[in-house]
Amino acid sequence: MTLKMTIYPKFTPIPPLDTVAQQAALERQSHLTKPRGSLGRLEILSAQIAGMTGSLDWLPKRPAVIVCVGDHGIAEQGVSAYPRKVTKQMVLNFLNGGAAINVLAKQFNIALTVIDAGVAGILPEHPQLVAGKVNYGTADFTKAPAMSPMQTEKAIQLGMRVVEEKIAAGADIILTGEMGIGNTTSSAALIAALTGEPVERVTGRGTGISYEQHRLKIQLIEEALTFHDPLDEDTLPKLGGYEIAALVGVILGAAGKRVPVILDGVITAAAALVAGRLDAGVIHYCIAGHRSAEPGHAVALQVLGLSPVLDLSLRLGEGTGAALALPLVEAAMRTLQQMATFGEASVSGAVNPPSSGLSTPESLPPAE
Amino acid sequence: MTLKMTIYPKFTPIPPLDTVAQQAALERQSHLTKPRGSLGRLEILSAQIAGMTGSLDWLPKRPAVIVCVGDHGIAEQGVSAYPRKVTKQMVLNFLNGGAAINVLAKQFNIALTVIDAGVAGILPEHPQLVAGKVNYGTADFTKAPAMSPMQTEKAIQLGMRVVEEKIAAGADIILTGEMGIGNTTSSAALIAALTGEPVERVTGRGTGISYEQHRLKIQLIEEALTFHDPLDEDTLPKLGGYEIAALVGVILGAAGKRVPVILDGVITAAAALVAGRLDAGVIHYCIAGHRSAEPGHAVALQVLGLSPVLDLSLRLGEGTGAALALPLVEAAMRTLQQMATFGEASVSGAVNPPSSGLSTPESLPPAE
Repeated sequence: MTLKMTIYPKFTPIPPLDTVAQQAALERQSHLTKPRGSLGRLEILSAQIAGMTGSLDWLPKRPAVIVCVGDHGIAEQGVSAYPRKVTKQMVLNFLNGGAAINVLAKQFNIALTVIDAGVAGILPEHPQLVAGKVNYGTADFTKAPAMSPMQTEKAIQLGMRVVEEKIAAGADIILTGEMGIGNTTSSAALIAALTGEPVERVTGRGTGISYEQHRLKIQLIEEALTFHDPLDEDTLPKLGGYEIAALVGVILGAAGKRVPVILDGVITAAAALVAGRLDAGVIHYCIAGHRSAEPGHAVALQVLGLSPVLDLSLRLGEGTGAALALPLVEAAMRTLQQMATFGEASVSGAVNPPSSGLSTPESLPPAE
Repeated sequence: MTLKMTIYPKFTPIPPLDTVAQQAALERQSHLTKPRGSLGRLEILSAQIAGMTGSLDWLPKRPAVIVCVGDHGIAEQGVSAYPRKVTKQMVLNFLNGGAAINVLAKQFNIALTVIDAGVAGILPEHPQLVAGKVNYGTADFTKAPAMSPMQTEKAIQLGMRVVEEKIAAGADIILTGEMGIGNTTSSAALIAALTGEPVERVTGRGTGISYEQHRLKIQLIEEALTFHDPLDEDTLPKLGGYEIAALVGVILGAAGKRVPVILDGVITAAAALVAGRLDAGVIHYCIAGHRSAEPGHAVALQVLGLSPVLDLSLRLGEGTGAALALPLVEAAMRTLQQMATFGEASVSGAVNPPSSGLSTPESLPPAE
């Protein structure tokens, strides 16, 4: 399945990873005072990031989380445990510093920006809020396309513009976040459409809905997929949301600048799936912060070829799983940079040369 | 299987968890502006820690990692990829700041103390080194008890004394770490003996040994278990090591003072198994920082009833996996303390009352 390129804005072609820096990171890891490969995922992460940034000396000094927000027409059908007005209420909570992402952003020194891409309500001006509203929520996707192609393009451009501004102002790693009552429904629909997996397999219980609501959610997504058939070229406008389109722009914009992106939960993974159909290279700049409790997330990550850093049964969104992964990303680079080598520390190396798959990190993303 | 209490030093009986504080934490979690249970493991962690410390306001302000070090007679039989002298060399590396744990301790503001419990070599004086050497390494446990009962007691007392001093000086969370060429062999033997699992199932490739060395390692452990049969009351002296006995003391000492303990890898899990046989209540004060690549670690954690915070295929020890879990432990408490409630933020609650297992954390440690 390909996406109709004409409805998407132009974006910087994604540059390939720097394989020289990547190999240099792996080579240095093999000389550090530890058994080869014994830092596990941290070693793989450090090589990936060296490949993204072209440097072994990179550290996340100016992390920025961009929380994209939008409302969903489908929410009126009772697919969430919360009423639709909670989307706007939670934006106000972000701006007042009371949400989980605020607490984590403070703990980890992450600058927080909220993008109103399509909230169904009027929001106040605020220095942390980008007033980019494309529309007052999407249409109910069981009855109409969620967004028009032009609205979709506008939301993607919004995310792209904001991330490029943040990067121009010094942000060196981008964390993705979102909020939008009904958006696990939209994401499950996108993931089903883009991966071909059965709706039942990729649809979870979101904010904690009942068994009956879960059955309804699956049924509505199946109806939407039938209603929009064939949707292969218009997947995002037909099934997506404004915040998801904005996230597509954030991911494309950051990867275009070779800035690492930490994905959060299932909604950001759906956005990454869309971004990856536009340019497969974008995924090389993505780090899966965590694997959430939503079943569609694991499916999406597998298709993306991303292995999550954390697995804490989170299902909150907002960028919380991305924020929690940040200190581990930093630790990966710090150990690479600051540990002594066997030679420097006069520590004896292994008696036997490494003889097994245990000795080197198991997998690296394909470089191009 | 019980341990012969007479060879173990007296220790403070482990106080029960504060179930009132634990319930108060869960109650507060249910009012915070997020779907119930959506912070997953963080919610469970915050309730556990409230139970340990008796407070919802606790934060890890003075973390301390205690790295216990000792040599192993069994190492002479070629069960490690590294020569035995690396134990002493790595202690010098710790004192010079070049090891992975130094880098992580710096990143996360963790005070580092190294205990020489039984290194087979002379070490210099250093402010971060506790010169507690009980012996110059253990005896080869395939031919003799690794330690005498009196030596074992001395090493446990050493760990207990150091942790109590650190806590008296202000340490409010203890991270366990270790170093000792050959100590995954000793730990696998302890885990096999204490859990009854087959040696093959709990014995891994440690620092990255070859297939042949791995076969030898399993065979030597099986020989040792036969040689010492019946060992049920003397498991620790017969199969353990000085650094493992010191870790038993660290864990008992911290739990006795109601100070949370973050366990690291398979060696610290073996120590926790021993400590848990002396007083089962000790495990309520333990947080499993991660699950390592060593197969015995998963087995030990399961028997301990502990679910790991991280799963990053680490297999380094030193306390690295415990250090990496620290920011997540802090995040668990910060979200509990600093998030707004639905009422404070004027956010609407769930439309339907929570109706499923998704709505509450899945498991809490049994309180007594």
